Amino acid sequence: MVQDTPRNSTPTGAESLIHSLAASGVDICFANPGTSEMHFVVALDRILSIRPILGLFEGAVTGMADGYARMTGKPAVTLLHLGSGLGNGIANLHNAKRAQSPVVNIVGEHATYHLQWDTPLVSDIESLARPVSRWVRRTQSAATVGADAAQAVAAARGAPGGVATLILPADAAWSEGGAPAPPIVPIAAAMPSDAAIDRAATLLKSGRRTVIMARGPALQRDGLHQLGRIAAATGAELMCDGQAPRVTRGSGLPAVERVPYRAETAMERFAGIANLILVGTHPPVPVFAYPNYPSWILPEGMTIHYLAQEHEDGVAALAAVAGMVDGGGQSRPVSAAELPGCPSGSLDQFAIGAILARLMPEQAIISDEAATNGLGPMMATAGAPMHDWLSNTGGAIGQGIPLATGAAVGAPGRKVINLQADGSAMYTLQALWTQARERLDVVTILFSNRSYAILTQELQRVGASDAGPRALSMFDLGNPDLDWTKLAEAMGVEASRATTPQEFEAQLAAALAKTGPHLIEAVI
Amino acid sequence: MVQDTPRNSTPTGAESLIHSLAASGVDICFANPGTSEMHFVVALDRILSIRPILGLFEGAVTGMADGYARMTGKPAVTLLHLGSGLGNGIANLHNAKRAQSPVVNIVGEHATYHLQWDTPLVSDIESLARPVSRWVRRTQSAATVGADAAQAVAAARGAPGGVATLILPADAAWSEGGAPAPPIVPIAAAMPSDAAIDRAATLLKSGRRTVIMARGPALQRDGLHQLGRIAAATGAELMCDGQAPRVTRGSGLPAVERVPYRAETAMERFAGIANLILVGTHPPVPVFAYPNYPSWILPEGMTIHYLAQEHEDGVAALAAVAGMVDGGGQSRPVSAAELPGCPSGSLDQFAIGAILARLMPEQAIISDEAATNGLGPMMATAGAPMHDWLSNTGGAIGQGIPLATGAAVGAPGRKVINLQADGSAMYTLQALWTQARERLDVVTILFSNRSYAILTQELQRVGASDAGPRALSMFDLGNPDLDWTKLAEAMGVEASRATTPQEFEAQLAAALAKTGPHLIEAVI
Repeated sequence: MVQDTPRNSTPTGAESLIHSLAASGVDICFANPGTSEMHFVVALDRILSIRPILGLFEGAVTGMADGYARMTGKPAVTLLHLGSGLGNGIANLHNAKRAQSPVVNIVGEHATYHLQWDTPLVSDIESLARPVSRWVRRTQSAATVGADAAQAVAAARGAPGGVATLILPADAAWSEGGAPAPPIVPIAAAMPSDAAIDRAATLLKSGRRTVIMARGPALQRDGLHQLGRIAAATGAELMCDGQAPRVTRGSGLPAVERVPYRAETAMERFAGIANLILVGTHPPVPVFAYPNYPSWILPEGMTIHYLAQEHEDGVAALAAVAGMVDGGGQSRPVSAAELPGCPSGSLDQFAIGAILARLMPEQAIISDEAATNGLGPMMATAGAPMHDWLSNTGGAIGQGIPLATGAAVGAPGRKVINLQADGSAMYTLQALWTQARERLDVVTILFSNRSYAILTQELQRVGASDAGPRALSMFDLGNPDLDWTKLAEAMGVEASRATTPQEFEAQLAAALAKTGPHLIEAVI
Repeated sequence: MVQDTPRNSTPTGAESLIHSLAASGVDICFANPGTSEMHFVVALDRILSIRPILGLFEGAVTGMADGYARMTGKPAVTLLHLGSGLGNGIANLHNAKRAQSPVVNIVGEHATYHLQWDTPLVSDIESLARPVSRWVRRTQSAATVGADAAQAVAAARGAPGGVATLILPADAAWSEGGAPAPPIVPIAAAMPSDAAIDRAATLLKSGRRTVIMARGPALQRDGLHQLGRIAAATGAELMCDGQAPRVTRGSGLPAVERVPYRAETAMERFAGIANLILVGTHPPVPVFAYPNYPSWILPEGMTIHYLAQEHEDGVAALAAVAGMVDGGGQSRPVSAAELPGCPSGSLDQFAIGAILARLMPEQAIISDEAATNGLGPMMATAGAPMHDWLSNTGGAIGQGIPLATGAAVGAPGRKVINLQADGSAMYTLQALWTQARERLDVVTILFSNRSYAILTQELQRVGASDAGPRALSMFDLGNPDLDWTKLAEAMGVEASRATTPQEFEAQLAAALAKTGPHLIEAVI
């Protein structure tokens, strides 16, 4: 138990804010502060129950909060400086929103009486916050900050979780008269109706091919147990979308297949499926439209049934359904994939996947932003020791390094492995510095292909195949090549470069054996 | 003259967009594209009048467009990927807005019929765009893209210049039926009223102390000529705010003093001033409020007179006033500061300023994001060869490197010198890679003090002086130290490290003598 330093006056707004956040269960603040947040920062010295962690860019900070939330299920706060600081954090807040991660943003603002002068940093913070927030509030004074903080945490934690943004005018922070507020119980996940459960059981017992597509807590251990029971009893096929926030996978667990990224492949996959049961998600739609493919990929006549909506308790619903279809039987793994054999030849995503699957420890956490290089590792690790797989949920690139950083903060004692595309890595590379400062246990596998490879693939698919040298130069990250070992070392992270499977294997084994951050630039 | 490759069908929306932008005078596209922008990128291969320049992060891209606009007075386009791409660009668009820089954002969007599915990347682009844009439009189809592009450019160029954002659904880009549009003449700066001019002349001839505070084109050569005439004839004091987008300075030009950053110093400076004449700006207000200082710093009883508003022609107004107060006389420099002497002792901002002032070539462009280290170089260069000084206009840090990059694109043949604080540099360091790829003539002087030094100063001023180790750790960029020579080299930019004035002088001389980018890490 840490002790707070007593003060002889009534609390400031900033102090009441921190007391209220702490009372509501917040213990981490990912911060990139400015002048208007000074009183909050100083109050962190007096009230030791919230630990501040510095990020050198707001996009790093918000991604860390997302990673922390995915591993703990509870919010960290971010501390951001005015509208432009929030702006820098928007891309990863968008991903956090799509992950339904609880996050509380504290956005510093000018003093209430100063705003009228339209000084250089004034901007419309609410307009920037709303697209990524389920809850936005501008606190009015020191007296309201505490209560607003409690509401912000409750809003972030209410099922199914989301982003809450509290705008904090500087005078509300520095003035006395703060009133710490008790926690507010967040809205819990609701139980789906008996009718929805009965209908799902009926569909599963129909004898027709049925896919259960799940998202959220249903893809973690308890949910997977119920999915495994259902699949074993009925032959249901288990799927999730390619942007699932967190999936527990590996040896002993039922395999959950991803909906294919490409519209045409997904259409083939769903052909012949009669029933689609949804748990905390919606019918699958390709991420992008393409000139010659439809947006709606499901077969005509398919029965689509929402067993549990996003705000409902998918795990409980699955348990109820499982009891109806297997009579209370045991779960058994639907599949337990073999580990792939030793790779030979050149270093590529399949060699990397095979080596990773053999070396990764139990309870590893994968932060996957490997983009075009993600398939190999994902296939190879299906039978690896049990692990959690965190995907890019909102398509905003620059998630991988911050997410790994925040996950490491949220799950000490577990090894975090960041599968990271080079193009995406450049958006938020600053998070490597925080890994070094906080000595976080993260191994980054940097896929260095020196291109926006996904875009050269997309080029064909959008029907724009007659690209010339100027267009192609827009996807080329060579000329000059990025030197990732230097970038990492410059931020205090040990790094090495691998060009063969043998080099990669030795470096990964060494990186996993030590604690603290390491980056392997895998030249592929 | 470059030749376009002919095509045998009607233009696509993307092609009509590029034709229309080119017809309206756009010739540069700073790009960070994604899937939804593919057709635009490919069309850049067919229509060679717009040159694409790749940035590895959107904040770099938008800052480049601002730098280009400040040096050319005309817009480049940025190519951004959906709401999250725009989000990453917001901070530097905020600075561009405050600089009144003409910029046209092309923000790719999902196909119109695909949006309804709320796929992972869907977000409210308009809500993100409005805080930084004077004009936002979502084009409806291939047929409307051309006309919308012409309007976007006119909106960006209309006096006094600003940011226009055109949202481009993928199907509007890829469909045929595009119609290239002719340029639209932007709204020109209006002539201020005779009454405003007469009043200014009367105030200047009143015999009471008068400050002229200017912004915009009035701070470039022609405007300075008129300000010099007025100052010589009437003793008027010339000032600008600390966030002026572009000020031409140096030997032979009248010196324009900055309004002091601190409220108390600014109040002292304005004490005894009877008249304040404003040209394209507003009365000065400190950037931030502080508990014990007022927001309004001007003396009671001061006469405040708008000679020209932001949308009016400040240079013409000043010329008219000059003609009334000096009877058509010649301009003469109000001051021509001496170059400072040779520095000795340790390397600090004053030594760096003195060395810079002696070595910098005629027509240099300074991108100033030196933060707490800016005063030394600014004081020292008052009498240096004529140069343009670009400030951080909106207070969103991460402007310096991108702005220097874009300025170099916009002003080939001129040496760009970026005075860059280390904390701010980390926000958009990716722009160094573009400097290397495009072989831009930029010398970055990186002030490596390993702290958010401005925040330790601000801490005292907001009355939060009892900070302890946790709070202070939030302003400390050491542990681990950032290695800026490695960061630069990793992105293809030659770099060196200086720890003494002698080392710095030798390295700066060498960097200025060659062409192409170089970074000097000045350890201070």
